[in-house]
Parts: sequence; structure tokens; C-alpha cells
Amino acid sequence: MHRYRVYGLFVDAPRNTAGEAVAFWSAALGARAESEPGDDDYTALRGAIDGLAMEVQSVDDTPRYHVDIETDDVEAETARLVGLGAQVVAHPGTWYVLRAPGGHLLCVVRRQTDPEFFAANSRLVG
Amino acid sequence: MHRYRVYGLFVDAPRNTAGEAVAFWSAALGARAESEPGDDDYTALRGAIDGLAMEVQSVDDTPRYHVDIETDDVEAETARLVGLGAQVVAHPGTWYVLRAPGGHLLCVVRRQTDPEFFAANSRLVG
Repeated sequence: MHRYRVYGLFVDAPRNTAGEAVAFWSAALGARAESEPGDDDYTALRGAIDGLAMEVQSVDDTPRYHVDIETDDVEAETARLVGLGAQVVAHPGTWYVLRAPGGHLLCVVRRQTDPEFFAANSRLVG
Repeated sequence: MHRYRVYGLFVDAPRNTAGEAVAFWSAALGARAESEPGDDDYTALRGAIDGLAMEVQSVDDTPRYHVDIETDDVEAETARLVGLGAQVVAHPGTWYVLRAPGGHLLCVVRRQTDPEFFAANSRLVG
């Protein structure tokens, strides 16, 4: 048995536009921009969406959004989503990048929220 | 003065893949798929994300996500976002389609949630 929930919405911005994307989205949504310590590629937009993380990520690709699913069992959750038709695009670290039927990107990542919040707001599988 | 909030996340799927996108996302997120009455292009995914609408939309375009911002003043909210650097892409009805700095699509739509919820969960401008 494992649990999962939608963790966040990511604004993947081409590297040379990431700064203006951060400026726009933080002002547009009344969010506080906060760089992730030790990782210049991610800027969190604190308070942008209630109950959901939102971040701007610098990418070497075209502009896109993606969704992150957090889980207490990355392998089991990835297997579940692959069983539903998703394809693994990459497995660059502890997380998986998947492409959903229809073509949309989503990532499966380890639990990001605190244990109590995650337990209360996630769904049980199995 | 007007108010706004992030209303929803839309999975824009090429028309011939919309059915499989609905099947995947509803199963993946434990959501109930519900067609919008009178509009075959939209299928709501009820309960997919707490506090946020999620829908699959059929589009004649490549796969993408977009974000909807709901507001009690579409013109004023659109003007605010344009002032922050967004560009108007289309104005097909009561709503506007904008492209944010960095290249991401978002729409500005009339208030979708009930008045009490909107008042309690939106931000005031001006």
C-alpha cells in the first residue's frame, strides 16, 4: 500500500526567460519568490495557490507546465501510473518523469510535504 | 477594486487523445470524470485536486496545460496581467487567453466558484 497526492504545478521556463517568468507569476499571484537553496533552477512561488506548491523551473526546452505527484513509494506510484498508460521519459534521480496518455508531462517525486499534512491529504492505493 | 484567484488547471489534449487523457487522469488522481453540460470539449475531473478545478479540454493543438484565473472583473484583471507583461492571445468570448512572460498560457475567466467561496479564497487588487 502507498499514498499519493498532487504536490505542485511547475512553470517550466526556458532558461533565458526564467527571471521574467518568476517576476510575472509572483506579481500575478501575489506570491513570494524564494530560490531553492542549492538549486538555482527552481524558484518557489510561496502562497501562489492554496494547498499546492508552485515553482518556476529553468529548462533547456520550450515553455510548458508540468505536474508533480508526491508519494511515499516512488517505485510503486510510478508502476501504478505506467499501468494506467503513462510512459517513463526519464529517471534522472530519485524521481521519474512520465508522459501521460494525451502527451502531458508529470513527475513522481518523494513526499515533499510534512508527514501529517501528507497523511491527511493524500489518497491510499492498494 | 476587484478580486482574483487561481481557479483551475486544464489539461489541453489534442482532440483524438482527449478520451484517453480523461481515462488516465481520472484514474490517476481518483477523480470522477463529468462532462460539462452542453459542451463536449470539457470534462471536469471532480475531486482531482483539493480546492482547485481540473478539467481535460479537447483542443486542435499540441498537448499542453494551462491555468485559469477567475475574477469578478475580467477586464480589470486582464489589464492588470497585461500590465505585468502578459500578452493577449485571444478573446473568444467572455474570457481572455493570455501568454505570460516565459511563454505559458493562462486564461482570465468570470468567477466560476460560488460567491462565498470566492470571497473567502481570492485576493483583492486596488
